[in-house]
Amino acid sequence: MTTPAKARSVHLVSRPQGEPVPEHFSIVDEAVAEPAEAEVLVRNRYMSVDPYMRGRMNDTESYVPPFALNRPMEGAALGEVVASRADGVAEGTLVLHNRGWREYATIPAAEARPVDPDRVPSVTSYLGIAGMTGLTAWVGLFDIARTAPGETVFVSGAAGAVGSAAGQMAKLRGAGRVVGSAGSTAKTDYVRDGLGFDAAFDYHDGPVAELLAEAAPEGVDVYFDNVGGEHLEAALHNMRNHGRMALCGMISQYNAVGPAPGPRDMFQAIARRVMMQGFIIGDHMHRMSAFLDDVGPWLADGSIRADETFADGIDNAPEAFLGMMRGQNTGKMIVRL
Amino acid sequence: MTTPAKARSVHLVSRPQGEPVPEHFSIVDEAVAEPAEAEVLVRNRYMSVDPYMRGRMNDTESYVPPFALNRPMEGAALGEVVASRADGVAEGTLVLHNRGWREYATIPAAEARPVDPDRVPSVTSYLGIAGMTGLTAWVGLFDIARTAPGETVFVSGAAGAVGSAAGQMAKLRGAGRVVGSAGSTAKTDYVRDGLGFDAAFDYHDGPVAELLAEAAPEGVDVYFDNVGGEHLEAALHNMRNHGRMALCGMISQYNAVGPAPGPRDMFQAIARRVMMQGFIIGDHMHRMSAFLDDVGPWLADGSIRADETFADGIDNAPEAFLGMMRGQNTGKMIVRL
Repeated sequence: MTTPAKARSVHLVSRPQGEPVPEHFSIVDEAVAEPAEAEVLVRNRYMSVDPYMRGRMNDTESYVPPFALNRPMEGAALGEVVASRADGVAEGTLVLHNRGWREYATIPAAEARPVDPDRVPSVTSYLGIAGMTGLTAWVGLFDIARTAPGETVFVSGAAGAVGSAAGQMAKLRGAGRVVGSAGSTAKTDYVRDGLGFDAAFDYHDGPVAELLAEAAPEGVDVYFDNVGGEHLEAALHNMRNHGRMALCGMISQYNAVGPAPGPRDMFQAIARRVMMQGFIIGDHMHRMSAFLDDVGPWLADGSIRADETFADGIDNAPEAFLGMMRGQNTGKMIVRL
Repeated sequence: MTTPAKARSVHLVSRPQGEPVPEHFSIVDEAVAEPAEAEVLVRNRYMSVDPYMRGRMNDTESYVPPFALNRPMEGAALGEVVASRADGVAEGTLVLHNRGWREYATIPAAEARPVDPDRVPSVTSYLGIAGMTGLTAWVGLFDIARTAPGETVFVSGAAGAVGSAAGQMAKLRGAGRVVGSAGSTAKTDYVRDGLGFDAAFDYHDGPVAELLAEAAPEGVDVYFDNVGGEHLEAALHNMRNHGRMALCGMISQYNAVGPAPGPRDMFQAIARRVMMQGFIIGDHMHRMSAFLDDVGPWLADGSIRADETFADGIDNAPEAFLGMMRGQNTGKMIVRL
């Protein structure tokens, strides 16, 4: 396979205040570097767009550094080694790495993890249910929130990649009732009928606290938060005593300008003895192997459904990200390159 | 000792909206009941007034039921058995029980715990540092927030009963830096010079987040919350990664009419991997014996200072409660009967 002289990548060219728009991104033609010693050149086949990337567009130091302006952005990607100067990494190897948002990536072989396409339902599973997405759902539910059989679990963003996985895993592990929220009737139908949640509501249909109280009349033991804001407050006010919250994401707040309001009447956290724990999946990579042991059989026998929404071509990657932020995806949003 | 025919008790006669005032209470002369079989009559010597009692004045079901109107209120008290029809409980026994707010209490002997005045610095310690107050500080710090040696601990309400105990216990167990907040210069001097906190600030002196950032420039590992509101938000925004919060009380919100605002920018709980856990000491009574084993030597050798503020006479009990809510006490507020 010959290496092209140039290939395209997506740059962040200015920092959004509030909602990002296409003008914050630029598609740039750049020279493709030949791999140096111990490096590989990867032709990216798929790349992931994820809510956490919105945080990296701000110029604030957080758990991941901000994206640099006028440089290719970063994120999970899956590609094929097309040139290798690394021992033991043959051309043709399929690898998972973090230099997405570009068609070709020249990277240290140590940063590219070979994956086996035959072990998963589809190769893109490594960007989702068999990768960080699935691990996030599993760690949040079981390590962080200690979900136990018989409990009532509420998952916000239930039609999204992490939310759909979390609800199904809770159910497979014996949760008594699993409730999800999503942003349209089509999605709540999908969450209930397609994913097997016991109940689902469209958060546009009224105050979330009331919708949740109807869907979980005996209260919530575990809240898996992907949304934050009104959802988090609603969960707090519907929590059963000794409930736990895994705070995974707060997509409703990522475009906020200025500090977003917090959940009112926080005293409920005391009265109900609620535990709220924020987590970042990067701290839990040592759980990947236990996660795969646990979830592998569910993937193999089809117990877990992990839908994907595809966009095609790097030109459409910014719009895929923006659409995902607006909730246009069902399950994992992936750009096919 | 003869039993009086009548004695006084404090009734709640109407429910406060916002700040309680003396008119919400009434001192009532009532007949003293002779003890029935398995009961004792206790002459109360000391009673406790505590922030959590404000919640019981509202007509809302919570972790403790509301006070009934036109009945004696309840709360921790220490008294002497003056008549007994219970096997093994002699007249003259000093007992701890939950029928405070009255001069005499006729109660099942099973609800009165005999205490030994020789085992504590002063008998009133059983209402404070050697009782629920001390246990609350110890459980919050070590069971809930898992405070480790070398860490930075922030305690709000640091001149209060629980706060002053928490800060000193953190220090005795090797915390690297202990910071307290209080509501006057006299109190912050006391917290720093009298109790040995490393730093203290008066929360009236500016935005709490800024005062805390100055007092704990490298951030906070453990926040022991007695205050809520702006303090809770300030702690969240000064938390170090993997910090823990023991949510014990939120005295700034107890008089709130309508839902009090929550901590803004809750996403910080994710970015910093913060754990927030509400707790009610009644769930942790099984830890009393381990607590006393741990804290007993510190009390015996004077390593912990547990100041008390006294009010005299049941007529002054409502004002003692109201004063405590306004922060007029240093350490434990106790009414001497």
